[in-house]
Amino acid sequence: MSAHSTTGTMSEMSAVRRDDQARLIMARCDELASHSSMDGGIERVYLSPEHAQVDALAAQWMAEAGLATWRDASGSRVGRLEGDRPGLPALILGSHLDTVPDAGRYDGILGVLLEIEVARRIGASGARLPFALETYAFHEEEGVRFGATLLCSRALAGTWNDDLWQLHDAQGVSLRQAFSDFGLCPERIGEAAKKPAEVIGYLEAHIEQGPALEAAGLPLGVVTSIAGARRFEITITGEARHAGGTPYPRRRDALVGAAEAVAAVERIGQQQDVIATVGQLRVEPGAVNIVPGEAVFSLDLRAETDEARDRAWDLIHEEFEAICRRRGLTLDINQIHQAHGVGCAPALMDAIGAGITQATAATEPPMRMWSRAGHDAMAVADLCEVAMLFVRCHDGISHAPDESVLTEDVAVALDAYEAAIWQVAEHYRRRQGA
Amino acid sequence: MSAHSTTGTMSEMSAVRRDDQARLIMARCDELASHSSMDGGIERVYLSPEHAQVDALAAQWMAEAGLATWRDASGSRVGRLEGDRPGLPALILGSHLDTVPDAGRYDGILGVLLEIEVARRIGASGARLPFALETYAFHEEEGVRFGATLLCSRALAGTWNDDLWQLHDAQGVSLRQAFSDFGLCPERIGEAAKKPAEVIGYLEAHIEQGPALEAAGLPLGVVTSIAGARRFEITITGEARHAGGTPYPRRRDALVGAAEAVAAVERIGQQQDVIATVGQLRVEPGAVNIVPGEAVFSLDLRAETDEARDRAWDLIHEEFEAICRRRGLTLDINQIHQAHGVGCAPALMDAIGAGITQATAATEPPMRMWSRAGHDAMAVADLCEVAMLFVRCHDGISHAPDESVLTEDVAVALDAYEAAIWQVAEHYRRRQGA
Repeated sequence: MSAHSTTGTMSEMSAVRRDDQARLIMARCDELASHSSMDGGIERVYLSPEHAQVDALAAQWMAEAGLATWRDASGSRVGRLEGDRPGLPALILGSHLDTVPDAGRYDGILGVLLEIEVARRIGASGARLPFALETYAFHEEEGVRFGATLLCSRALAGTWNDDLWQLHDAQGVSLRQAFSDFGLCPERIGEAAKKPAEVIGYLEAHIEQGPALEAAGLPLGVVTSIAGARRFEITITGEARHAGGTPYPRRRDALVGAAEAVAAVERIGQQQDVIATVGQLRVEPGAVNIVPGEAVFSLDLRAETDEARDRAWDLIHEEFEAICRRRGLTLDINQIHQAHGVGCAPALMDAIGAGITQATAATEPPMRMWSRAGHDAMAVADLCEVAMLFVRCHDGISHAPDESVLTEDVAVALDAYEAAIWQVAEHYRRRQGA
Repeated sequence: MSAHSTTGTMSEMSAVRRDDQARLIMARCDELASHSSMDGGIERVYLSPEHAQVDALAAQWMAEAGLATWRDASGSRVGRLEGDRPGLPALILGSHLDTVPDAGRYDGILGVLLEIEVARRIGASGARLPFALETYAFHEEEGVRFGATLLCSRALAGTWNDDLWQLHDAQGVSLRQAFSDFGLCPERIGEAAKKPAEVIGYLEAHIEQGPALEAAGLPLGVVTSIAGARRFEITITGEARHAGGTPYPRRRDALVGAAEAVAAVERIGQQQDVIATVGQLRVEPGAVNIVPGEAVFSLDLRAETDEARDRAWDLIHEEFEAICRRRGLTLDINQIHQAHGVGCAPALMDAIGAGITQATAATEPPMRMWSRAGHDAMAVADLCEVAMLFVRCHDGISHAPDESVLTEDVAVALDAYEAAIWQVAEHYRRRQGA
């Protein structure tokens, strides 16, 4: 199959059919949103009854799209479309169906529904790919239930760590127990892992979770890298004292120290062009008339490169130490998460870029941007090359009920995603032929 | 009885007997500490089983000290020593037996035990006062159970407000229900109130809850005024957004605004020589990767005069508004408590000062200081003139398990408290004679 016939296949899709598919995806986003453990909002965590409900829907939709389908050993739903012949290595399309508490309808979900419809198109085209296509619906990308992120995509990449079995949810249920209760077998987790030879690459579509595409008036963008966040729990300890009886020179007020630290995080983040956020802060003992003896807060740090991120952390850390020295406070730092940033593969980025150009008929090269948020692609990068397609969302809002995307953007994303896969196929054939 | 015979009565008290009394008071502080609802700590709230237990002890100790004793309509334990003849107006000595959670052994408690032993001495002296002496053991001074402070002393002063009956504790039990469950009759609360003609003044002994006496090397001090605190709940509202996807120019981070506000509170408090404390702060939604949409914090404000306090609040309020304007945040201010400061009565302050001088044989005039903490005396000031004696505590610590006082300070406090009462008697006789 040549580049020409690829384009020909796409052009045979009527605009009507494309818009129908986009509306179907939007309706399915709504349907998935109804499977929630939260009254009046969306929350769907790993190995929960809601996981089972949406897994059944994903299975049904994958089967309807003409894919063979099964649940893997980690609880991911997988669909497979064979290529030129059975048993070829697969190009994997993936995203996730779990959500944060009080979530929107599109983060993760949109990517899964796009990949199913894209696989349906390719299957229906009559043309065959030189590789298989596998569609993954991951879970526990967000890490809400067990506090560790990207679990199903780690299982696929073969980087599932046995320490994970020690994790417990807020109700004290261990990950091992939750596996058994869900009908999965912890001992078989290794079966979810693929070997590098079984995979030719990984693509993921996701809402941008930022305002850049909307600001530029563009529906789609190419991701260049995914920031590896570092997360810290910072404890500042002073001395709890009666507010009335303790004059300023006698105070070692942990909260005033933490307040200076929070302000410093913003200042250094802006200066260093990184994203530094304090999202949690609590105070002990937390009484109106007691000088706080302890303040505990989180720090989330992201940058385009690991180097920029680590440089910013060094500056923040120095500033924290200076504040605590000046105020007679003690500083305790606990790094609770560190991920390496992941660069997307040039050939896959080019394929996505070409797909966008074709789908949007744009004359300018497509917009490229780094992802401030983490994605399953980060875990899969340990297995194979990865790249991502970003879809415009309104006002950069995500992880919130008013997350929104335009149906027409979903339609153009379908075209771009499909075109990107034919581009990958062409590139793959050239490389195989060479 | 002349000033001379007063001194004579005291000098007949042997130092041994005085030290025994001080040790008895310390032992009783320990005994009261064992009546607690908290495992491994002290907590004793209004109208609880522990209230009933310590009320029974106070009744026994007052009776042993030679006082007539009863429980008033608000749950205070009262003892009475008649003066020259039965039915005279009373000089009231008061303090409280309720505690904060995880309390020390002395805040409130020491004052009650001192007044009982002082009344015992005066009764045992054979000399008669020109007025009755009443000893009060109040409850709900701290306001832990129902959120409103100084309840029993308000009942004595006749300022119990019918709105109080609407209050509920954390278990949903109304104050009215708690009264009935305790065997008190809400309809009879008015009987706890005294008329001004029945009272000639009010004295209260209390640990300093500050480091000034210890720093000066003095066991006792005279209180000049009790600061009237104002307390606020401040809400700063921005917008909750995904930390990764929201660049700085798009953020309206409620926590960074609150952090600037907390730093401003300390700065203005120091500049204005008032005590301004943020003891509570919480953040919504409080996720590691979400820019905080809301920060709620408390502000507790105390000063030597209401004017100084209110001037500081105006400056703080202006600064809060400037921060929120600059950051696109909204500010919501809820004043949850306001008490007028209370000036102590010059004649009663002089009597306490003279008592301290006599007890300590000091050549310098006694130290005078304003109380940063609230006390029952504030409520009783609506009924009659008040004054307070402060006792040194270690390192200014209070409302904490390591609250501590010296037995020798308790001994000298006994002498000073008794001498102050004889001084009040002398002054009263002079005024009656005049």
